[in-house]
This record gives sequence, C-alpha cells and structure tokens, in this order.
Amino acid sequence: MEVIVDGLNKDLSTLSVGIAGLGLIGGSLARRFAQAGVRTLAWNHHDTPYADARAAGIECVDSLEDLAMSGVDVLFLCTPLRAMEDMLDVIAPHIPPATTLSDVGSVKTRVHDAVVAAGLGRQYVGAHPMAGSEFSGFQSSSAALLDSALWAITFDDTTDYLRYLLMARIITDTLGNTFIGLDNATHDAAAATISHMPHVVATAMVNLLQDSPECNVAAALSAGSWRDMTRVALTDPDRTQAMVEENPANVAALVREMAQRLTDVADLLDDPDNHGLELTGFFRKADPYRRFKQAQRDGRPMDSDELTVTSRSWRHELVESARRGERITRVRGIRAFDVQWQHVDD
Amino acid sequence: MEVIVDGLNKDLSTLSVGIAGLGLIGGSLARRFAQAGVRTLAWNHHDTPYADARAAGIECVDSLEDLAMSGVDVLFLCTPLRAMEDMLDVIAPHIPPATTLSDVGSVKTRVHDAVVAAGLGRQYVGAHPMAGSEFSGFQSSSAALLDSALWAITFDDTTDYLRYLLMARIITDTLGNTFIGLDNATHDAAAATISHMPHVVATAMVNLLQDSPECNVAAALSAGSWRDMTRVALTDPDRTQAMVEENPANVAALVREMAQRLTDVADLLDDPDNHGLELTGFFRKADPYRRFKQAQRDGRPMDSDELTVTSRSWRHELVESARRGERITRVRGIRAFDVQWQHVDD
Repeated sequence: MEVIVDGLNKDLSTLSVGIAGLGLIGGSLARRFAQAGVRTLAWNHHDTPYADARAAGIECVDSLEDLAMSGVDVLFLCTPLRAMEDMLDVIAPHIPPATTLSDVGSVKTRVHDAVVAAGLGRQYVGAHPMAGSEFSGFQSSSAALLDSALWAITFDDTTDYLRYLLMARIITDTLGNTFIGLDNATHDAAAATISHMPHVVATAMVNLLQDSPECNVAAALSAGSWRDMTRVALTDPDRTQAMVEENPANVAALVREMAQRLTDVADLLDDPDNHGLELTGFFRKADPYRRFKQAQRDGRPMDSDELTVTSRSWRHELVESARRGERITRVRGIRAFDVQWQHVDD
Repeated sequence: MEVIVDGLNKDLSTLSVGIAGLGLIGGSLARRFAQAGVRTLAWNHHDTPYADARAAGIECVDSLEDLAMSGVDVLFLCTPLRAMEDMLDVIAPHIPPATTLSDVGSVKTRVHDAVVAAGLGRQYVGAHPMAGSEFSGFQSSSAALLDSALWAITFDDTTDYLRYLLMARIITDTLGNTFIGLDNATHDAAAATISHMPHVVATAMVNLLQDSPECNVAAALSAGSWRDMTRVALTDPDRTQAMVEENPANVAALVREMAQRLTDVADLLDDPDNHGLELTGFFRKADPYRRFKQAQRDGRPMDSDELTVTSRSWRHELVESARRGERITRVRGIRAFDVQWQHVDD
C-alpha cells in the first residue's frame, strides 16, 4: 500500500509525534515538542518517568504497540540501538503507512539496516540531534538541551523526499533548530570524528589517571583543562561502549589515527635534535580551525543564501552543501532551502 | 650572608609582593593580591597593561631591576620559562636576601635548575596555581581566576622551611586558596598527566579534524563533547608548545602510553570475536574515578583532620599527604596544618 505523505504542505499546527524511550534525548525531545504545543505521545520500557512526563504535557501510553498504532505523524525511536531491533519487530505489524518512522541514534548505518530488515525502509527518515550531556535519564532531560541544536537528517537511495521535507520542516519550524543532510556513511564517519573517538580518548585519559601511582596528586592538581577534556568520560560507560560498538570500523580507524599522531609527537619530544620546527608544525596545524572558532566567539554573523536542489540529485546536493559548511535553517519550497554558513577553511 | 625569614610569624597585613610578568596568571595573581589589600608591585616587558593594572591598584615599575631591589617579601616570576633564565641574571645582583623568590610556572624542575644556576636556590620556593583559561594576556586576567584554586608549593632538598611556611600562609590566608606540597619531579609528572599530555591530545584531535576530508561536516556536527575536549587546543599554540617542551620526558612517556591504550582499543574493535568483555573492562576501569567525581558533584563534604610533620622529614610527609588526596587549608603552627580530602579510591 503506497501512501503519500505530503511533508511540504502538512499543516504543522496539527502535528502529532510519538517518542519511544524517555531517556535524556527522548525526554528532552518530548518536552520540547510538548512545549511547542505539539500533541506528544510517549512510551518507556518502565513507567518511572510517566508522572513527571505527564506533568510536562506528554501523553504516556501503556505499550509500544499502542504508540505504534496511535497514528502519530512521526514516531521517533529514542532508545539505545541494541533495544531498537526488538522494538522494530513489535512496531512493524502496527505502524500505519502514513506514520513516518525516525530515530535519534548517534550511528545511522546500523539503525537503517534494522529498519530495512523490519520492512519499514520506505517510511523511515533517520535523524540525529547534536545535543547531549554526561547525565542520563528523563530526570536529566530538558527542552533547553535542544536549544540551537544542529541535526543531521539522513537518507539513503530509497528515502522518500516528501517525508524528508516533513522532517526538515519539523526540525526547523517546530523545534527551531537547524539541520544538514547526510547519507548514512558520511554521517557515521563524521560522528565518529567529533563524538565517538573523543569518548574513547577521554576514557583512556581517565584510565591512565586511575592507573597512575600519583593518582590522588594528579587528581588534586587537575583544573579546567582536565575537567573539560574528561567530562564525557563521566558518561554512563555502558552507554558509551554501546555507541562505540555500533560504529566500530570508523572508531577503530580514527582511534588508530590518534595513536599515530600521538606517537609522532612522542618521537619528536624524545629526539633532542629534532624538536622545534616539526613540533611547531604540530601545534600550528589547526590555526584555520582556531580562526573559525574565534570568528564564532566574536559572534561574526554567518553568511546566508538560498540552496536549490534537483529532483534527481537532491541527496548529493545536500551532502555537498554540508561539506561547504552550510546548515539549513528553513524549507522555502519543494526544492528550496535557506542556508547559513561559516567555514573552517575561511 | 644568612638572613632568617620568619614565615611563621610574619605579619601578613604588612605583606608586599612583586609580580614579574603581567600575563594571564601574573595579572590574575596581581589583581588578587591588590584586591586583598597587599602592596603589589609589578613589571612587564612592555608597558601596555600598565594603565589597566594601575587602575586595579597595582604599582607598576619601570624595570625588572627596580622590581628586584624593591624589597618586597615575595617576588613571583610569572613569565614563560624561556624568559626566566635571562630574567634571573638581571634579578640576581639586585634581589635582597630577605626577599623570597617564587614563580608560577607549570613545570618546576627546569625553573629550579635555573634558579640554582643564578645562585638564588636558598631563597627560592616554587609554586604553581592550578588555574588557567584558553585566553592570554592581562586583558583576560581576573582575581576570580584563582577562586578555589589549589596550588602546588614545591621544594627540593635545600628548601628553607620558614620561607616555605611564608608561601603556605600567603596562599591559604591571603589568597584564600589551598595547596599541596610536592617535590619537583612528582609535580612535573603529575602536571604532565592532567595538563601537558591532555594539551597534546586536544591538539592532535583538532589536527585530525583539520585534515579530515569531512572537516566542515564534522565541525558542523560537533557539540558539547567536542567543544569541551578541544577547548585547550584553542590556547595560543606557542604557549602550549613551550609548556610541552619544558617537560619533554614526562610528556613523551604519557603521550606514548595514551597511544598504546588507544591502539589496544582499536585492536579490540577490529577483532569481531573479542569485543565485549575486554571493551567493558576498558570503559569501566575508571569507575572509582567516576564515583569520586560524583561525590564532588553531590557536594559531599570533605573529610578534614590535622597534619603534623617533623623537622627531619617534612618534605616526605607533605608528599605522602598529597598522595593520600589531602589538601592543606591552613598553617596552624610551626609543624601543623589543617587538611581536607576526598579520595579517588574511596
């Protein structure tokens, strides 16, 4: 049964969403939708957060089946990936074709594979809000966690463009956020670079401290730089491990690259004849990135423009836009978007 | 000429200090002393900060010789180490024996060597406040940068105990901070663990991003975890390089250890038969550290006690106190201190 979801013209004032999993991200997303006046249904694998969720205007349902068959416009899976595969088996027989299926997982290739295996590929549009904290659970969630968040909205070769536009409009208009469009592989490589690999690095640093004979001395001396660099290692280690295990090839390659870069520095430091110039190269390489961050800090206004895409190669054009450093702020029409940007390589 | 500096009984209401170098740390220290009503003299290698410094109650002098001969109780060197060696040659002929010489450098062995080479070892007590930011210069300094700061006050086999007590009282009573006592080698190893090595790691991460073909995509996706982990890489890279080059053996060894830990994780991720259990060990190893940080976050009160030391082995006893996780909050008497602690291995 083919159902047309007209994501371009859908009246967002009648939007309804379902949230499966009221953890940190699911809870924050549910709160933000409810705050925006969107009818928000939610299910969690235990009902501990329901009283607080209901107080925040979220309608809690008894079962995942109930949520799947509720007829919401978009159903977001907000649980760890390892739970999603079983959930998809429960959802698949009940979810109406008009409901668009999405998720907020930090790794997209494996979610997409699981969705396709459950026969739901045609109604799926993946999403990943770049937001989080070292805390977990609904009790740590807040609508403000998504303030100024950038999302990746992902696609593969079969993604329905009109459903993609629905997601794009919800994220920009309803949630007040921005997004970039990425294929699953590009997303997972970039997410490994700025999140999964850094979590491994932070964990390795606290392990090193923990194993040090001067553990207490070092911990006492630690100040802002250590605190900030190891904050993510305070995350629930099971959650971090699950995230890393969902993206193993990308993470392994990047962690190895970090190890090589660190070994190169150690070799320079151990060679008294060789320091200066090459070490200067190491410390100065990222000057373009420093200038980019300085421009952000100075509040330099972003450039803005309109992006138009074609029906044939919208996927490629969205990825190229993201590669130029653009983020999409609004859906202007069937193939037109407002974009803003600031480049690292300015 | 032997001069007794009675650091135990010195009336701190008549304290005067000199600050050589009005950068981020020297400027913040000068502001904090001035705010505490201490007569604060300062010199800088250019007079750009003098107008603002004078407005903050700091007396600026024309030359380093003037500062050296001013007769302040403690003269703090607050410049990069590479400038200190020449400065010590200027200071040595002019500094009265009653002035205690100190510094705020993040590496102590080499400063101490330079001080001894200048013939000033007997009047030197090294110090290192654990405070900083990614900014530089007097314009970024503030008395509040030292709020709640822990200092290391360092010693070697010839350090004068009464001058050591003077520094201890100034840091606790006048500045309202706490300290631990460390020999130079223990200090430099611990500082490499929680500051110098992490600076190299953060720099390697931004270099990796900078070199990535998906640089703009990754930068766009980056959120809190990346921002916090790379903040110190936004530091002036010359300052970071100088810091690392002052402590090369410790930094090289720790950077190599990080590389090995990361390679081990990559090996586990690349071996599909081997993941689970060993990866769990990696992610869970630092659970004691996580509990320690959680206790801090919960505001669990620190334990407190009195520490007494002997005239013969006060150095060893102070280091052992630091190794137990104690910090000194007050000088109670000639060989008695108040201490507080929270252990990582609780």
